[in-house]
Amino acid sequence: MNPFIYKEHALHCENVALAEIAARVGTPCYVYSASTIVENYHAYDEAFGDIPHMVCYAMKANSNLAVLRLLAKAGAGFDIVSGGELFRVLKAGGDPSKIVFSGVGKTAPEIDEALAAGIFSFNCESEPELALIDALAHRRGVKARIAVRVNPDVDADTHHYISTGSLEHKFGIALAEAEKVYERARQHANLVLEGVSCHIGSKLMDSAPLLEAADLVLALIERLRAKGFDIQHVDLGGGLGVAYEPEEVTPAIRDYVRQLHAKVQGRSLRVMVEPGRSIVAASGVLLAKTLYRKKTGGKEFVIVDAAMNDLIRPALYSAYHEILPVRARGAATLRADVVGPVCETGDFIARDRDLPELLPGDVLAVCTAGAYGFVQSSTYNARRRAAEVLVEGSEWRVVRTRETYDDLIRGEEAL
Amino acid sequence: MNPFIYKEHALHCENVALAEIAARVGTPCYVYSASTIVENYHAYDEAFGDIPHMVCYAMKANSNLAVLRLLAKAGAGFDIVSGGELFRVLKAGGDPSKIVFSGVGKTAPEIDEALAAGIFSFNCESEPELALIDALAHRRGVKARIAVRVNPDVDADTHHYISTGSLEHKFGIALAEAEKVYERARQHANLVLEGVSCHIGSKLMDSAPLLEAADLVLALIERLRAKGFDIQHVDLGGGLGVAYEPEEVTPAIRDYVRQLHAKVQGRSLRVMVEPGRSIVAASGVLLAKTLYRKKTGGKEFVIVDAAMNDLIRPALYSAYHEILPVRARGAATLRADVVGPVCETGDFIARDRDLPELLPGDVLAVCTAGAYGFVQSSTYNARRRAAEVLVEGSEWRVVRTRETYDDLIRGEEAL
Repeated sequence: MNPFIYKEHALHCENVALAEIAARVGTPCYVYSASTIVENYHAYDEAFGDIPHMVCYAMKANSNLAVLRLLAKAGAGFDIVSGGELFRVLKAGGDPSKIVFSGVGKTAPEIDEALAAGIFSFNCESEPELALIDALAHRRGVKARIAVRVNPDVDADTHHYISTGSLEHKFGIALAEAEKVYERARQHANLVLEGVSCHIGSKLMDSAPLLEAADLVLALIERLRAKGFDIQHVDLGGGLGVAYEPEEVTPAIRDYVRQLHAKVQGRSLRVMVEPGRSIVAASGVLLAKTLYRKKTGGKEFVIVDAAMNDLIRPALYSAYHEILPVRARGAATLRADVVGPVCETGDFIARDRDLPELLPGDVLAVCTAGAYGFVQSSTYNARRRAAEVLVEGSEWRVVRTRETYDDLIRGEEAL
Repeated sequence: MNPFIYKEHALHCENVALAEIAARVGTPCYVYSASTIVENYHAYDEAFGDIPHMVCYAMKANSNLAVLRLLAKAGAGFDIVSGGELFRVLKAGGDPSKIVFSGVGKTAPEIDEALAAGIFSFNCESEPELALIDALAHRRGVKARIAVRVNPDVDADTHHYISTGSLEHKFGIALAEAEKVYERARQHANLVLEGVSCHIGSKLMDSAPLLEAADLVLALIERLRAKGFDIQHVDLGGGLGVAYEPEEVTPAIRDYVRQLHAKVQGRSLRVMVEPGRSIVAASGVLLAKTLYRKKTGGKEFVIVDAAMNDLIRPALYSAYHEILPVRARGAATLRADVVGPVCETGDFIARDRDLPELLPGDVLAVCTAGAYGFVQSSTYNARRRAAEVLVEGSEWRVVRTRETYDDLIRGEEAL
């Protein structure tokens, strides 16, 4: 359910008026709905029903400790891609035995930290990585559970920066080479080769490529089992998208999982998925305040106090984000670019957007900003990173304070 | 002069071997040459000769306190675009009377901080901004020196994200409207309308558009003077590029300034320029270490420990950065993508690059990374931001320490 609705012309997150948060915390500010996050997690978890499964939240989408804690309490596992993410999960009380570690560039210290924590499994992306994990597991006197990430060469219909399952991508091992890789990996005495994993990309509006990849991976598992590999789990990655534009429709999580369920049933496999965006994107908005209206060269601009350093998706992925006034202003009467204060033409939030009349001081909600929002923010132009707020019903609290000027220079030489 | 040269097969910054810095500080790590930064500043400063001038370093390019301190000591002024940048300049001992404040989205608190500091001038981008500065100056009982930023509608031949001087851009006021804006601004009793400014874009390899813009602005100044405006200074912005690719040639700073000099001579104008990239870009490299070599689907990958969160220019601007091994490895024998550990296909440093044989552990220098490098870095994928090092002759020191895991969660709810 969309937690962002107007009540008496005031946009709310659950039962809290966003205007109240903007007034108390200031802008720019991210606001997340706790109930939506937990609800989306449960949609995954429940739809798997009686099949052994683990829903590992891809925390790269939003790794605020409060968000992680909500999911950990709900029973989620976590898909991590760095030592920093491992640190965050453990700080949030996440269960190490439900962590999978993905990524093409795991460093030796990161692998060692994960072995020390006792994570569930490594999604391995190359043979040198297998050798490194084996050596580190040996030194520590432990066995490491492994799923080799295979690249099914399925074309994910998404932005080229976040499509990851084609042969020309850096991720995984080509499906055709996978059996040989497993064979060679038998030499590593400290690896338990019990899984297969794949992930073909992010923000997919159609489950067909995901299901096609699942078929290819399940067929590989049959071949591996025939060769004597005791494959116990399959990690099908994440990738389900959400609607960003008004005419888009968010794919139903339960429908997708039911389709996976049908494919996996009776195979004696534990299924893992790694959803990120589909859990948190629609649960969050970025609040910004209008600073100036400006017309130049026949074009109209709404200049707001959030910028590309706060939300880089429009500049980096040509992403669309819906913009709603926090106080309803009636029909669109204005066509304008919504831009931030950063000194680049690439600093825009929306282009040629139809908007209601907006005046300086009016607060806007940039929608569907709960995923790949704050986590990609920077201090470019010496701008302090935004605050983050979590709403639970009628309650809300700051879960990350706005940075200060002193934070900007931390670690630098003070006079 | 390029400070990065091989001495006995070891790449140096000035007189320091980069391998030493990588071994002591770790990777990823930014390294800057102090002498190059100061030399480039002096090239601007000296070429103006007897003409009253102010070289205001556009610190958005690199705002490390140690870099700012070098430039402040050399006599530079500063072009700032936020309250955070003002804070940094003052921390670095910069002279407030040499600061100009640019940007389309100055907030009231930021303007007030700048008035309190006694900066030289505001480059104003809109009429509502003029009114706001007037009101704030009135409250403080001071006068604010103003240059209206005009948009000369000159086509800067550069990436569309950093071209800023066309009519469809958010910046400045259309040249055709400028005289009316100055007329109307006479009503603001607390503004001293003594300047005109422009800035048409960044990374220009040819000074022709810059000189064309200068002509248009100087003609405007004549018209404004004829109407009784006492125009004292012209701010011609920044924009001069540097060579990133081997076949490019960096435009000579002194040649460009001499051309400006010829245009401005005899006009009783103080000239200001706002160079950023041309001062710091070639003074810096990003050091990264090879983690893995990998071949998949017939394509070769060199996976390094620096990623798009450290240097976003390749992903954001399709930027090219030369890559040199810190230990010379002979001729190129390898064609590969150089990619980082971040879980996006957009995370790449170079594509289809010819490289010498590189093995895990080998350190690489990603060149021309002194501008728009660290300042645009983020903690995406919960990666700690890199360390920064300043080299001065045979000495070097860390001028920003690498972030820690604890830094990542600062301001969040700890249990």
